[in-house]
Amino acid sequence: MAHELPRAPLAPERFPNLLPVAGVELATAATNSRYKGRDDLLLMVFAEGTAVAGVFTRSKAPSAAVDWCRAALAATGGANPRALVVNAGNANAFTGKAGRTTVETVAAAVAARLGCAPEAVFQASTGVIGNPLDPAIITNELDGLLSRLSATEWAAAANAIRTTDTFPKGACRIAHIDGYPVVINGIAKGSGMIAPDMATMLAFVATNAAIPAAVLQQILAKAVDRSFNCITVDGDTSTSDTVQIFATHRAGHAPVTDAADPRLADFRAKLYAACLELATLVVKDGEGAQKFITINVAGARSFEDARTLGLAIGNSPLVKTAIAGADANWGRIVMAVGKAGPLIDPNKLSVAFGGTVICRNGLRVEGYDETPVAEHLQGRNIVIDVNVGVGDASATVYTCDLTHGYISINGDYRS
Amino acid sequence: MAHELPRAPLAPERFPNLLPVAGVELATAATNSRYKGRDDLLLMVFAEGTAVAGVFTRSKAPSAAVDWCRAALAATGGANPRALVVNAGNANAFTGKAGRTTVETVAAAVAARLGCAPEAVFQASTGVIGNPLDPAIITNELDGLLSRLSATEWAAAANAIRTTDTFPKGACRIAHIDGYPVVINGIAKGSGMIAPDMATMLAFVATNAAIPAAVLQQILAKAVDRSFNCITVDGDTSTSDTVQIFATHRAGHAPVTDAADPRLADFRAKLYAACLELATLVVKDGEGAQKFITINVAGARSFEDARTLGLAIGNSPLVKTAIAGADANWGRIVMAVGKAGPLIDPNKLSVAFGGTVICRNGLRVEGYDETPVAEHLQGRNIVIDVNVGVGDASATVYTCDLTHGYISINGDYRS
Repeated sequence: MAHELPRAPLAPERFPNLLPVAGVELATAATNSRYKGRDDLLLMVFAEGTAVAGVFTRSKAPSAAVDWCRAALAATGGANPRALVVNAGNANAFTGKAGRTTVETVAAAVAARLGCAPEAVFQASTGVIGNPLDPAIITNELDGLLSRLSATEWAAAANAIRTTDTFPKGACRIAHIDGYPVVINGIAKGSGMIAPDMATMLAFVATNAAIPAAVLQQILAKAVDRSFNCITVDGDTSTSDTVQIFATHRAGHAPVTDAADPRLADFRAKLYAACLELATLVVKDGEGAQKFITINVAGARSFEDARTLGLAIGNSPLVKTAIAGADANWGRIVMAVGKAGPLIDPNKLSVAFGGTVICRNGLRVEGYDETPVAEHLQGRNIVIDVNVGVGDASATVYTCDLTHGYISINGDYRS
Repeated sequence: MAHELPRAPLAPERFPNLLPVAGVELATAATNSRYKGRDDLLLMVFAEGTAVAGVFTRSKAPSAAVDWCRAALAATGGANPRALVVNAGNANAFTGKAGRTTVETVAAAVAARLGCAPEAVFQASTGVIGNPLDPAIITNELDGLLSRLSATEWAAAANAIRTTDTFPKGACRIAHIDGYPVVINGIAKGSGMIAPDMATMLAFVATNAAIPAAVLQQILAKAVDRSFNCITVDGDTSTSDTVQIFATHRAGHAPVTDAADPRLADFRAKLYAACLELATLVVKDGEGAQKFITINVAGARSFEDARTLGLAIGNSPLVKTAIAGADANWGRIVMAVGKAGPLIDPNKLSVAFGGTVICRNGLRVEGYDETPVAEHLQGRNIVIDVNVGVGDASATVYTCDLTHGYISINGDYRS
């Protein structure tokens, strides 16, 4: 049986205050399967007229739930989702026909109770890969869940979708569309097997905004690209990675039907902020993480190049262990950008740790004093600035250090 | 100052017996710079008429020595190299103009003593990135080195090029060309920052075969592609990675001037065997390694696809930590091949650990018994067989587990 890990040192002090979202109710339950004594099942129910969009793992061996959601989105065009079911502890991935039967059984059971089509029931599963998932452990809980639905149980929801996460992750923003306040609530889980694409294993956003599915999809994809796709813990990509947004259309404003509509500017910014907050919380709960690392790459030819360079730094075990050891080993940054692929100019390269420039134009600065750098590296929040000297584009990537804790957690996760 | 690490548990019992190579003499010295009390400088001298070929890091921030060797090869066409100088402890990488001056100074000093062109002096440096390398620590030793040249000091040579390596690495093969026995001696160093392309940081092969540089280059590139480019320790690529082969033309057979000449078949096979032995020794000295992992990927569309899939498994921290913990977590294999990129068929995927098939056709086998797998994972040599079900091509990749030792070594390498 899995044991609970101590709360990560980078965890925020408390779960944020998530507001009710008109048209969204939720409840959680304990299936007592993999995790004992805590909730591991989440049901969200959405009002009629909700729209949904989603971004999923690029894994070529996706989970049964990911396959199901992709098909459901295609079949419905994202119109009128009525429920989301999430279980933690079993990923229902690499489970073949039995896995497909499980998601079909769950969808049918929820649909029968809500009086909707099975394709209106979205699902996600996270946990161990390759074990059969008995649909009964979910369907047995449905009546209880439906009897306990509430608009306020967001913290419980964030708690129930955790696997090795040591703290629940949530974010809330208020945007304005046409002067109407719009709530954006997000919850996420993920701490290992975290890398683009997708970064977090699961994140769900609910809003009362009136935005149709096609527009939601465009806005979500862009927000994910600069948030969840800019983080890495260990370079591994899960079979289950999912980000979905549900928009209940209850905010009161007229629906916005064009992604380029300027009335969406604030919503777009706040959705990005919420996604970024969730993504960085995932990094802060990175398995074994003791330090949060922000890598700003500038001077690249494109955002994609800059992100690739940042991820090469953020995925380098040598960089991550050096920072764990508070070692100002900037040579490993040079190594990482050198191997990454995108064009750089070694003779224009500059590297700074915590704002202290260590090298400029490809050379260690004259009279470089390591003291402020060493001091910075003793802290919890590490900032690395790199300029690769070939262009104007930049990107920011977030990661954590690689510590003994990572080895301990992953050397004994399943057994 | 760097401290010496205990000998790796996967180290071979002893250094192999390397034979003299007609036309090659060598000597080592202690510069007492980064490493105290042990040799860290190697000089090899080659007879007139030797040919050289080389394969170098793909890093876009290569070391000054790599730049120098590339230019020397281009300038001479690989004809008549006279010396190789290797220092350990300082990579002379990211050292700008001063770094170039250092290699020029060393080349001029050796050339003056041997009466050859500076371009006949090949060089390699390994160690910390970004620190100036004073050429005097090398040139001061040259007269002593030249006075001590010997044909037999291969073990001392392998020792002198180590950095964090815990044991010296060598391989020796006898090939036959036209009935003439030909010696192939190889030494290598590398234990962290090991990944394609190139795999090891430094490897040098010497042979008395009579093979011109252009043919050597083709044979070497092929051997490296299936050996050094099929190993990974941590996915990191060094700024200094170098494999060079020197052929002294002293074996007695007529020169072989065509890479496709069937008389080269045995040489080709033995060179590959020597490269593979050196490459796997590097993995066995992987920082913190407790287990040697062989990953056989079959059923791919091409060798390149199979290798990419194998490296995705071999680079996955989740796979490597699971094996460190003797955890038969085959779901992480599925995750790794799923994220790798090349085409796979999840419904035809099979995975075996230590010859025990765990899943076949995308499903866990009926009545799977974990006992033999758990037993296999307790050993030092782990074998993983994966078939991805879309073609006939295969590749074998070698890696090691990811342990607390890796974190300890790399969290405090430089300081």
